[in-house]
Amino acid sequence: MASLLRLPSLLAPAAARPAALLRHRGRCLHTSPARLCPAATAAGASSAAPVKMETRGGDREGQVTPRSTDFNAWYTDVIDAAELADYGPVRGTMVIRPYGYAIWEAIQDYLNVKFKETGHSNMYFPQFIPYSFIEKEASHVQGFSPELAVVTIGGGKELEEKLVVRPTSETIVNHMFTKWIQSYRDLPLMINQWANVTRWEMRTKPFIRTLEFLWQEGHTAHATLEEAEKEAMQMIDVYTKFAYEQAAIPVIPGRKSRVETFAGADRTYTIEAMMGDKKALQAGTSHNLGQNFSRAFETQQVVIVPIWKKGDEKGVVMEAVASVQNTLKEAGIRVKMDDSELRTPGWKFNFYEMKGVPIRIELGPRDVKNRSVVLCRRDVPGKQGKEFGISMEPSILVDHIKGRLEEIQASLLQKAITFRDSNIVDVNSYGELKEVISEGKWARGPWSASDADELKVKEETSATIRCFPFDQPEGAKKCFMTGNPADEVAIFAKSY
Amino acid sequence: MASLLRLPSLLAPAAARPAALLRHRGRCLHTSPARLCPAATAAGASSAAPVKMETRGGDREGQVTPRSTDFNAWYTDVIDAAELADYGPVRGTMVIRPYGYAIWEAIQDYLNVKFKETGHSNMYFPQFIPYSFIEKEASHVQGFSPELAVVTIGGGKELEEKLVVRPTSETIVNHMFTKWIQSYRDLPLMINQWANVTRWEMRTKPFIRTLEFLWQEGHTAHATLEEAEKEAMQMIDVYTKFAYEQAAIPVIPGRKSRVETFAGADRTYTIEAMMGDKKALQAGTSHNLGQNFSRAFETQQVVIVPIWKKGDEKGVVMEAVASVQNTLKEAGIRVKMDDSELRTPGWKFNFYEMKGVPIRIELGPRDVKNRSVVLCRRDVPGKQGKEFGISMEPSILVDHIKGRLEEIQASLLQKAITFRDSNIVDVNSYGELKEVISEGKWARGPWSASDADELKVKEETSATIRCFPFDQPEGAKKCFMTGNPADEVAIFAKSY
Repeated sequence: MASLLRLPSLLAPAAARPAALLRHRGRCLHTSPARLCPAATAAGASSAAPVKMETRGGDREGQVTPRSTDFNAWYTDVIDAAELADYGPVRGTMVIRPYGYAIWEAIQDYLNVKFKETGHSNMYFPQFIPYSFIEKEASHVQGFSPELAVVTIGGGKELEEKLVVRPTSETIVNHMFTKWIQSYRDLPLMINQWANVTRWEMRTKPFIRTLEFLWQEGHTAHATLEEAEKEAMQMIDVYTKFAYEQAAIPVIPGRKSRVETFAGADRTYTIEAMMGDKKALQAGTSHNLGQNFSRAFETQQVVIVPIWKKGDEKGVVMEAVASVQNTLKEAGIRVKMDDSELRTPGWKFNFYEMKGVPIRIELGPRDVKNRSVVLCRRDVPGKQGKEFGISMEPSILVDHIKGRLEEIQASLLQKAITFRDSNIVDVNSYGELKEVISEGKWARGPWSASDADELKVKEETSATIRCFPFDQPEGAKKCFMTGNPADEVAIFAKSY
Repeated sequence: MASLLRLPSLLAPAAARPAALLRHRGRCLHTSPARLCPAATAAGASSAAPVKMETRGGDREGQVTPRSTDFNAWYTDVIDAAELADYGPVRGTMVIRPYGYAIWEAIQDYLNVKFKETGHSNMYFPQFIPYSFIEKEASHVQGFSPELAVVTIGGGKELEEKLVVRPTSETIVNHMFTKWIQSYRDLPLMINQWANVTRWEMRTKPFIRTLEFLWQEGHTAHATLEEAEKEAMQMIDVYTKFAYEQAAIPVIPGRKSRVETFAGADRTYTIEAMMGDKKALQAGTSHNLGQNFSRAFETQQVVIVPIWKKGDEKGVVMEAVASVQNTLKEAGIRVKMDDSELRTPGWKFNFYEMKGVPIRIELGPRDVKNRSVVLCRRDVPGKQGKEFGISMEPSILVDHIKGRLEEIQASLLQKAITFRDSNIVDVNSYGELKEVISEGKWARGPWSASDADELKVKEETSATIRCFPFDQPEGAKKCFMTGNPADEVAIFAKSY
C-alpha cells in the first residue's frame, strides 16, 4: 500500500483522494502510491462563507474580485491578498508563504503521527533518477515522460546519462526495495517520504498545478496479498478520517473500476471529493481541484484585534488583550494578535476573514470596562455571527471558544455533506444517468456492465466511474445499463 | 541574518558551524545564510566509545572494519551496518534510511521551536532558479557554477532558459524579498526553509558530501544594520546552544577574518568545531566533516532487549518487558523494544551499540523474578558500564534512567571539551604557530597583521584563521606575527 499527499491542492478549494495501487513484485508485494490531496482552506472556505468585502474603515488594498464576477480572478486574488503564495520567477512555480506553509506543517504533524502509529518510517530518497529507470517501466514512461524535467548538465559537463527530476519516487523506491528485501524477515517494509516532486505541467495555477510541488508518498512491501490489501484499506481509512475530521471534507472512499485503475496495478482505491462546481476530484493523479473545500486547520486559529481611538485607551486595551491571548495560548488554542497601528481594525477584519480565521475576538475600551470581549464567527456572516459580552474570565472564555470551534468544524462538515448528498442522484437507467450528468451532478447506480460500456458512457457523457463506494446499499440490484444482476453500485461523474 | 543547517553532516562525525553574512540591499539589510552542520551520531559517537565488535552469540553479518585499521572502510561500514543510509542509483546520491532520518526530524523539531520563538516563519521557495539569476551575482556564479545541476529539457522540449537546481536559495529569496519589501512596515522579514539542495560535488561520500542534501536555510531582512547584527548574533547563539546542549559538540563561536569572510558579506560569523582528527570544520560552506561527533538525539533512546532460553520463559519475560516499555514511554523517554527471534541477544547488543543507542536494558527470566533489570551504558565499555538489579518500580527506574541519560550527555560533552582544549595551544610567535600546526593542533594567538600575512601563513602552513573567538582573553596583547598591539586573538587551524 502506499499513499501520496500533495501540498498544491492544499490551499486550493479541494479535497482528499488516495489511490492505492497493489502490484506484485517477486515474492513481496510492493504497492505504489495512493494520493491524498488534502485540502483547501482560506480560498476554498469562501465558497460556503463568502468573503465579505465590506470596508469598515479599511483601505481597499488587497482588493478581491467578487467570486460571482470572475471565479479565476477571485481565486488568484484571494491567494495573493491572504498572502498564501506568490509566483516564483520560473513559469509555473510558486513560493509558499508562511500562512500557506503553516497549514502544510499542520497536515504533516497530523499525518506523521498516523503513519508512525501504523508502522511507517520516514525516509528520504534522492530526487535524481536515471533516465533509464523511467524507461524501464512502460506504463510509467508513458504516463510521465511528457511531464519530465531533465538534468543534462552537471558540474559544468554534459552528463553521460540524463537524470530525471523525480515526478514520483516509484522507480527509485522499487530499486532500493529490491536491494533491501532479501527474505520474508525484511517484510513488511513500510516507508514514507515528504518531498518535492516535479511535473512539467503546461497550464499552471497556484496550488492547483505547479511545476514543483510538495507531497507525501508512502510505499510499502508485504509478504502476502492479504496483508497488502489490509494495509491499503487501513491507509484509505487514515485518509478518510483525515478528510472528515480534520479537513471537513466528506469524501467517498471506494474502489476504482478496471478502466480507471492505474496501469500495472491490481486494484486502485480512492477517496473522491465533490468540488464546489460538483466536478469530482480526479483520482490517480494529484492535481485538479475544484471548489469544495475545508477549513482544515483554521479551526485552531483565533485572531484578536484590539480597538482603541484615543492614545490613553491603548494601554488598558493592550493589557486586556495580552491577558486574553495568554489565557487562550495556555488552553492550547492557536491564537494570533494583530496590534499593528498601520492598519485599521476594519482592514484587519477583512484580512483575517479572507485568511479564513474562524473566530475573531474584538476588544475595545468598553469591553475592558465590562471584562468581556466580542466574538465573531467567520462562517456566519454579519451580525448573526457576532456575540457580545463574552466574559474574559479564563474558564468561561476558553470553554466558550472551544465550543464555538467545535461547532464551526461540525457545521462546515455538515454543510459539505448536505451539498454532496443533494448532488448525488440514484439512477436506474442509462437515460437517467445522462440526465443527471447533464445537470452537472453525480449519478449512482448498479453496474455490472463491460469495460466497453464504461468507455461508451465516458464518450457519450464525459462522465467516468469515480469509484465503487465502500458504502453499498443492501439488497438485490440490476445493472442500469444491461439489466443483469449487479453486486455493486458505482458512482459516475465528470472530473477535473 | 540567516542560517543553514545541512543533513549530510548529520550522521557524519561532525559539528556545527554557521556563518552569518550581512549584506546591505537598498534600504533593508538582507543577510544571507549562516550554516549549521549539526552533527554526528552513531558513526561519530564511536570515536569516543569505540564500537565493540564482540560477537557474543551474534553472527558476523554487518561486520565492521575496525576504525584503527582503515578509517574510510570503518566509516562506510558503520553507515551500512547501522542502516543509516544507502547509496542511491545516481553517483553521489544517497538514500537516508529511517534511523538517519529520525535524527534529522529530531533536529527539525528542536530548531523549528527556536526559529519560531525568534520570529521566523517557515516558507517554501521553488527549487528551479533561472540561470540568469545565478549569473547576476558575480561572486555567486563564481562560487557555484562548477557545482550546478542544470535542467535543459522540460516537458519534452529544450528550454529557452536553462534552469539551475538550487545550490542555495539566496538569489531567489532576494528576488522575492525585493518584491515583498515595499517599506519599513514590511521589516523585519524573517523566513526559514527546510529543503533539498543540489551541488555537483566531484568526490562524494555518504553524509559528508552528496550531490543532493537536506538542509535548513534562514534568510532575514532588517531596517538597520544594528538590528541585522543583533539577529545574526542571536542565531549564532541558537546554534551554539544547539551544538552544546543537544549535540554535545563544544564549538567555538567567533567572527571570520576578512580573508575568510564570504565574498559580498560585511561580516561572517561562524562556529568552529574540532574534528576527531583535529581538523577544523570549514566555515561558509556546508560539507566536510571530521571525526568529532555528538550523540545528539540518541540521548533520548533506550533499547530493551528481552532474553529467554526456554519457550516457557518467553511469556513472563515479554510481560515484564511490555510493562517496562510502557513505564518509560509514559515518562517521555524514547524507547525501542527488539523482540525479534531472528537475531540473538548478542547480535542485538552489537547492533544497538553501533547505532549509538546510549542505554540498553537487558531483561531475562531471573530479572523478572527479582523485579529488576540490567542497564548498560554505551559510553562506558565492558562490565563497568553495566548495572545489575535496577528496580522495575516505575518511579525508581524512570529516575534512574533519566539520571543516566543526563550523565551520558554531560560526560560526552566533557570528553569533547577536554579533547578540544587539550588540542588548542596558545602561541606567541610565528615559529610556535608553525610547530603547533605541524603537530595537527589548533594555534591561538594575538593577531593584527595584514591580509597578506594571513595568506602567507596559509601558504606556508596550510592553516587558516578559523575565527576570532567571541571568548577573548583579557589584557594587552601583541600580534605574534608583527609585534604590534593586537585587540584580539585568532584561532588558526587546518580545515577540511
